[in-house]
Amino acid sequence: KCFLLRVVNILLHYIEKTFDDKSKILDFHHPHQLLEGLDGFDLELSDHPESLEQLLVDCTDTLKYGVKTGHPRYFNQLSSGLDVIGLAGEWLTATANTNMFTYEIAPVFTVMETVLLKKMCGIIGWRETEADGIFSPGGSISNLYGILVARYKQYPEIKARGMAVLPCIVLFVSEQGHYSIKKAAATLGIGTDNVIEVKCDERGKMIPAELEKNILQAKRKGQTPFCVVATAGSTVFGAFDPLHDIADICETHKLWMHVDAAWGGGLLLSRKHSCKLSGIERADSVTWNPHKLMGVPLQCSAVLTREKGLLGACNQMQAEYLFQPDKVYNINFDTGDKTIQCGRHVDVFKLWLMWKAKGTYGFEVQIDRYMELAKYFYKVLKKKDNFKLVFDAEVRTLLVGFFWWYFNVSILSFFLFNDICVYTQIAPKIKAQMIVEGTAMLSYQPCGDKVNFFRMVFSNPATRQTDVDYLIDEIQRLGKDL
Amino acid sequence: KCFLLRVVNILLHYIEKTFDDKSKILDFHHPHQLLEGLDGFDLELSDHPESLEQLLVDCTDTLKYGVKTGHPRYFNQLSSGLDVIGLAGEWLTATANTNMFTYEIAPVFTVMETVLLKKMCGIIGWRETEADGIFSPGGSISNLYGILVARYKQYPEIKARGMAVLPCIVLFVSEQGHYSIKKAAATLGIGTDNVIEVKCDERGKMIPAELEKNILQAKRKGQTPFCVVATAGSTVFGAFDPLHDIADICETHKLWMHVDAAWGGGLLLSRKHSCKLSGIERADSVTWNPHKLMGVPLQCSAVLTREKGLLGACNQMQAEYLFQPDKVYNINFDTGDKTIQCGRHVDVFKLWLMWKAKGTYGFEVQIDRYMELAKYFYKVLKKKDNFKLVFDAEVRTLLVGFFWWYFNVSILSFFLFNDICVYTQIAPKIKAQMIVEGTAMLSYQPCGDKVNFFRMVFSNPATRQTDVDYLIDEIQRLGKDL
Repeated sequence: KCFLLRVVNILLHYIEKTFDDKSKILDFHHPHQLLEGLDGFDLELSDHPESLEQLLVDCTDTLKYGVKTGHPRYFNQLSSGLDVIGLAGEWLTATANTNMFTYEIAPVFTVMETVLLKKMCGIIGWRETEADGIFSPGGSISNLYGILVARYKQYPEIKARGMAVLPCIVLFVSEQGHYSIKKAAATLGIGTDNVIEVKCDERGKMIPAELEKNILQAKRKGQTPFCVVATAGSTVFGAFDPLHDIADICETHKLWMHVDAAWGGGLLLSRKHSCKLSGIERADSVTWNPHKLMGVPLQCSAVLTREKGLLGACNQMQAEYLFQPDKVYNINFDTGDKTIQCGRHVDVFKLWLMWKAKGTYGFEVQIDRYMELAKYFYKVLKKKDNFKLVFDAEVRTLLVGFFWWYFNVSILSFFLFNDICVYTQIAPKIKAQMIVEGTAMLSYQPCGDKVNFFRMVFSNPATRQTDVDYLIDEIQRLGKDL
Repeated sequence: KCFLLRVVNILLHYIEKTFDDKSKILDFHHPHQLLEGLDGFDLELSDHPESLEQLLVDCTDTLKYGVKTGHPRYFNQLSSGLDVIGLAGEWLTATANTNMFTYEIAPVFTVMETVLLKKMCGIIGWRETEADGIFSPGGSISNLYGILVARYKQYPEIKARGMAVLPCIVLFVSEQGHYSIKKAAATLGIGTDNVIEVKCDERGKMIPAELEKNILQAKRKGQTPFCVVATAGSTVFGAFDPLHDIADICETHKLWMHVDAAWGGGLLLSRKHSCKLSGIERADSVTWNPHKLMGVPLQCSAVLTREKGLLGACNQMQAEYLFQPDKVYNINFDTGDKTIQCGRHVDVFKLWLMWKAKGTYGFEVQIDRYMELAKYFYKVLKKKDNFKLVFDAEVRTLLVGFFWWYFNVSILSFFLFNDICVYTQIAPKIKAQMIVEGTAMLSYQPCGDKVNFFRMVFSNPATRQTDVDYLIDEIQRLGKDL
């Protein structure tokens, strides 16, 4: 008890530092330095125990050399921030230390999951009583579920007999869709070649006419389309595919429509911005990660299906040691057999507790504020000569993502007369210096014909306008001397 | 801060209760009762926020209506117990709230994972520098990885082209193997029909001659064997397949050997009992869940491969927004692309901290103590007329699992003259009453020609001899009046 309280003290101190914009986001060291041991922080494991005192030092050091993902100037990933209520939820979850497979050992949590899934399905616009879902370990697995269920619905014989009895099935996703779709196709035995990438417009949205064309082409080649994955909030450009147009095409060709709203799903909670996902109610399955826009601690991801019973039919094996039919309670709440897992971490409680704490409107306020910040950021950047937006015209409709190149005039002229390599190095160099100094964190990447550009993400509740100003100044400061 | 401290108080009180053998394990209610709301514990979610006071009540209620999986008389699952150091580790993990995909945002944790994987590979008996692995969300996913990598190793073209270009591949697992193997086969597009179940001896171990026969039969049928899954610690009978014999067969037929040691892997830490897994060093891949015998909080599971680089080659997609090649540090520590996930929960820290706290020898002491308790339990049961062991002769070599029927003389005679149904109901009825009274929890199930029997699991560090005595008395008490 005393040990736990001392750990809590360390954690509370860390939380305070996290929210302090004067503190460094990280104290950067290279992997080899950590491996070699830093100031007595030895990662190697021994046969003999360490003292409790040493463990407390280890805990402090673990946090010291880590990254404060809740820091107001942490813009690095789509999931960021540190919600204190969510954190309390996760501490309780850890203390309860149970497993989602049966009501028997997780009575409250399995029922909470049912409540949350219904709520989310209702928000999507489905009939709650006819819909279904499950929380999974992250958006990639949720997307895998979408494709898995799509395949099962069309070809239930797959479960027993495998892909051998199926025609050459193909699925479609935009060229800006998340890479987990290809991962899933590889895992499921479909193959990445059978994921057909549909062209996007200049703003990163799937072009419906291209989808239609690709479907017809595939059919002509003797391939059998079975599923379209639409993206509601693409990873890089924050684009929203036109869901109604895609739903029309799916209806015409009788294809399963999965919407990857891992990131964009949170927008459904904003009455002002939910229109970006208009048409999602026509999807057959949806991925929605509360650990992104909604700020729930990692991990918290749901896959939802419009039709009830499919997840179960597709995945259940009825293991007799877990899912006994002769239990004392209604075994419909033993939901574990709907999953591809056996044991399953409790990911719902922190979301449930946050929802209680904020109410649906609380999430809305938070998400609308990100949008305001994004607009502000855009306006400031527009006025700067040495920044360039990747998609100028799009910015106003993007939710929380802005993308730009840093233009240093001398480098630019150098670039014009020399080669692209130098230009490509600007963002990585600025980022590297930022990390080393620990002042801010944001991501960069190349995309198609665009060389490395910064990708700004607004999903951190701690971020204020001043932090946004700071970031712009910081990039200018670090870029000046390149 | 004040809110967090008050939650911590609630949690500390719960932990105290958990370890108190006088407290009830659970306060049982039916799902519909929880859904309807119990004493103001309302699970429904609203548009408006609740007060912090109400949230604290909600937290208390969540624990009140849950199951104390760390209670000394909780024998219900292979993962049980509440390790306070592990718990502190999980609280810290939640506070750090980061993601395992890149070193960039999880520098300490990714390096810790490397250290732990090396340690575990070394303990298996592999060359650490040539081996590889990853932590995954549970044993079922780890088993899926084993089969996924086995398939990729034999047919690297699967990744791009899918199962269509493969022959009809089949894999083998004993009839007592875990159901996740079939789940994985269904998910991977192999199909459950192509999982060939190998017969076991009367103690639940795979019979090598049967495996050999099944392989030859499959080949004659035109099927292509590619993988054998051996089980080191079967779920129901706690049996250990003869790994050396299976390795010989795999070598002869050039098959991948995966060992599902999700449960039994912990035994490798006991110098006295690790011999049960002799031959595991010849495996190509291994599943090992520290959240089972080692008592690490849920979830903590590793899949390990003898050959380095396969997980990466099989799963990587090199998404440019995460795995930039031009980072400031050695990107070999960006291990996220080895997985089928994208975001990945930090499951390593609690294990690392527990290992620091106990040392390897500390795990050994704990595991050896389970074995002693199991032996004690066996001896006591042997002397009782009204209990019968499912496998009398095997018990001495079983680690922590004991299996028995409760024989109530009057029921037995009834059974002899009537039908099997009544007999089948004994265990469920006793269990139901146990749950309602909240006095103890253990599992039951039928298996093959054996009707419902109890399955006793020793993997709870809080359990003492007196708890075992109590359980036997309790079963007798509850069974008497059936």
